[in-house]
Amino acid sequence: MPKDSKSDKPAKRANAISPTRAENYAEWYQQVVSEADLAENSPVRGCMVIKPWGYGIWENIQHSLDRMFKDTGHQNAYFPLFIPLSFFEKEAQHVEGFAKECAVVTHRRLEAKPGGGLQPAAELEEPLIVRPTSETIIGVSFAKWIRSYRDLPVLINQWANVVRWEMRTRLFLRTTEFLWQEGHTAHASAEEAREETMRMLDVYEKFAHEYMAIPVIKGEKCSWERFPGAVNTYSIEAMMQDRRALQAGTSHFLGQNFARASDIRFQTREGGEDYAWTTSWGVSTRLIGALIMSHSDDDGLVLPPRLAPRHVVILPIYRNDADRARVLEYCRVLMAELRDKRYADGPVEVALDDRDIRGGEKAWHHLKRGVPIRLEVGPRDIDAGMVSMGRRDRPALARESVPHAEFVGRVGEILAEMQRGLFDRALAFRNANTREIVDRASFDEWFGSTGDERQLHGGFALSPFVDDPGIVEALAALKVSVRCLPLAQERRPGACLFTGKPTDRWAIFAKAY
Amino acid sequence: MPKDSKSDKPAKRANAISPTRAENYAEWYQQVVSEADLAENSPVRGCMVIKPWGYGIWENIQHSLDRMFKDTGHQNAYFPLFIPLSFFEKEAQHVEGFAKECAVVTHRRLEAKPGGGLQPAAELEEPLIVRPTSETIIGVSFAKWIRSYRDLPVLINQWANVVRWEMRTRLFLRTTEFLWQEGHTAHASAEEAREETMRMLDVYEKFAHEYMAIPVIKGEKCSWERFPGAVNTYSIEAMMQDRRALQAGTSHFLGQNFARASDIRFQTREGGEDYAWTTSWGVSTRLIGALIMSHSDDDGLVLPPRLAPRHVVILPIYRNDADRARVLEYCRVLMAELRDKRYADGPVEVALDDRDIRGGEKAWHHLKRGVPIRLEVGPRDIDAGMVSMGRRDRPALARESVPHAEFVGRVGEILAEMQRGLFDRALAFRNANTREIVDRASFDEWFGSTGDERQLHGGFALSPFVDDPGIVEALAALKVSVRCLPLAQERRPGACLFTGKPTDRWAIFAKAY
Repeated sequence: MPKDSKSDKPAKRANAISPTRAENYAEWYQQVVSEADLAENSPVRGCMVIKPWGYGIWENIQHSLDRMFKDTGHQNAYFPLFIPLSFFEKEAQHVEGFAKECAVVTHRRLEAKPGGGLQPAAELEEPLIVRPTSETIIGVSFAKWIRSYRDLPVLINQWANVVRWEMRTRLFLRTTEFLWQEGHTAHASAEEAREETMRMLDVYEKFAHEYMAIPVIKGEKCSWERFPGAVNTYSIEAMMQDRRALQAGTSHFLGQNFARASDIRFQTREGGEDYAWTTSWGVSTRLIGALIMSHSDDDGLVLPPRLAPRHVVILPIYRNDADRARVLEYCRVLMAELRDKRYADGPVEVALDDRDIRGGEKAWHHLKRGVPIRLEVGPRDIDAGMVSMGRRDRPALARESVPHAEFVGRVGEILAEMQRGLFDRALAFRNANTREIVDRASFDEWFGSTGDERQLHGGFALSPFVDDPGIVEALAALKVSVRCLPLAQERRPGACLFTGKPTDRWAIFAKAY
Repeated sequence: MPKDSKSDKPAKRANAISPTRAENYAEWYQQVVSEADLAENSPVRGCMVIKPWGYGIWENIQHSLDRMFKDTGHQNAYFPLFIPLSFFEKEAQHVEGFAKECAVVTHRRLEAKPGGGLQPAAELEEPLIVRPTSETIIGVSFAKWIRSYRDLPVLINQWANVVRWEMRTRLFLRTTEFLWQEGHTAHASAEEAREETMRMLDVYEKFAHEYMAIPVIKGEKCSWERFPGAVNTYSIEAMMQDRRALQAGTSHFLGQNFARASDIRFQTREGGEDYAWTTSWGVSTRLIGALIMSHSDDDGLVLPPRLAPRHVVILPIYRNDADRARVLEYCRVLMAELRDKRYADGPVEVALDDRDIRGGEKAWHHLKRGVPIRLEVGPRDIDAGMVSMGRRDRPALARESVPHAEFVGRVGEILAEMQRGLFDRALAFRNANTREIVDRASFDEWFGSTGDERQLHGGFALSPFVDDPGIVEALAALKVSVRCLPLAQERRPGACLFTGKPTDRWAIFAKAY
């Protein structure tokens, strides 16, 4: 067994990730994903493999959101992967919105091909669409389940995979297959359905703020950014470190559009008959992309502690066999002490990395994966009753010597402080890069190229807005889109920068993912 | 508001499910599923909708198994839904085994059809198979991840949906799409891979016994029942109440077959190169079918408490508004007391059903859904400090008056007693319907029709066995199959009932799902 495991300082390189964010943001992102072992491309065009460390983050996202959904009265269920074409066609705008990106199953077996190999056989009478979203297939069940106002509301959520054929894909941000949850609810009145739509938008905001440590702006989408078939679409919008916007979750008020398409009728309290009012809302594995781009630095992934699969990793330091036995024994006791502690909703998750590799390599391994706290423990630390703590929210080489007992007592507090710190940093960044802009020249300058790659995207612009599809082209020329009309806004008078029309509604404009 | 909610006794009908098991077992099964609100057929041929109560059972199955997988060192990950045909073809036996039941994606968009409607467009260069199992696509990642013996073992699990095109389907038991977990591991030696194969079979046995309350027989599958491409397949086999066998989980030793097909090579400790040794193992939503058919009775679903989404339901009884307020207040306090109690790995799950419907209807609602304990609480119970307990493992109309405090104190114990009782009853049933048979005449009589529908299936026969595909036809004529060669068996001499050849191995034969 190699005995050279020792207290190497992390190697004296400038950064663990190359290129840095400033050098090439898109490539930096790919490298962070790769170095943190989060995901990789698969041989299936546009589909990714989510590796254990990335999937561990998704499990934490699922676990936390699932509890919030259940606390607001929702139940999980599961509906078919396939949607017969005839059902999919029922809502005209809906099918138009998704027709260009549908994976279609046309055959149900394989047979030998003349000359060798296999080919599809037994063509289906009706093609099946691999669900890009499930409104139309869930509508069939809702139509069966709902007879009377007494059956309402129906509050359902589904954790599932969906497929939207994407030509240009990026790990987590845009993939042909992705994992998500989709909430689907039916109500007896428009008002109740609208309340549900906003309730779930609030749940998403709370989750983004308290778990993801990402500040988001809640708002309504403009008409041309609506979910196909929806009456209103609301979203939470976050700012990434390249100052682009990322839509992190959506909640749709569907009116009676899908109820009409799926024939979801009910007997009203007054004895009449009406179509139900429905909503849908979802977030996906895209959230992991948002996490990465909100917090990570030029040394790799940075994770908010509440979503980190592991909170603390213990790195034993020793130079010989006698030390080794003593240090490992000490580390095991420390691990047991920490596991008894709680942070947020569960125990502190601790691992001991006793692999026989160089200490520097080991520290960088966990640093790049975003483990919030690294604890180095060697013979001298033991003698002094100290642990050497490296925090992922501090510079990579910085370490702090903390009395053993104090660290064990305060570990939950330190993690909570890191969680708050990440949110505060992201909020300060967003505020510093958001500007109220009321004239076109300043708008163009804000979003124009300065020749410096880092200055390409101005950030968020808050500007007067008129919902006129005539402005789409001018925005497209600037590669800017309307992110949302923030719900929290005063109705101040202004004039649309593109049409000059007067308005008292303002929107967030940004370049976006 | 209707005020007629009162302590109706469950209506005096013989049974809640019609037909009974004895009258028509297959139809009884469908009715139990339907009356317990577990699942329903969807408009997609062979695909089911898993309703909230059924999905709640699946969530408990997932939660318990997932912890057992993690405790044995496995990590979750996620791999693509689609498998390019060329990858799927790599293992010859494998593709042959699945070719007849593959859903094939051939197009990636929809376009307008002349004359209206939509049709598939943009044909793919290579068809994609919707995964029926993931060995071949996971193999691609394993080949990338594994370079050296230091990278081994790789211990991965995936929770996913899979598709096998079935012509004759039954809810939970055989559906075109189903949910499952599939474990995939790679090892440096055949011995380690064999150990893993048996370890996971043991995990499945433990889960069946301790959570599902279903006794199972661990054994090896005969050559013609092996997973396509496996060297050895092992299964756990359970006996349903119609005495048919149900395969409840499988674990495969894949040798180097899939490693060769996917080119999973590694540098050995000795400096040479070798193909990895792999395993795979899985259980599916079929387990819910096994649960239903093991424990349920002619009044509906019976659930082992460890997998029940709800342990206790409180049914308030009152005849007027004054009583109503008093009883509901009392019930809420009782609910809070019970929620503080723990059973098995978590809190006691309690619900209060305060809907204004007739008491009898309400009691039957929960009875048919298999809630382990119903507590009726009326003014007289309150005055006497008692609760009226109905246990799902006792006759439907039986109720027992228990002092309030005693019930709260003992609730965990009562649930544990019910859990054990279900297992013991299922084990006694299996033992009573298993017979050692060493001659063909007795075998034919055991499995032959007696003219009485209830006597159609003899149960399990333990008989001498020779692995000779020549006997398949004779077995098929009897509609009997070889379930497994039990691992726990003495090697006693005998002669195959079909070939007369001598052997010292015995197998379980049965009619099967």
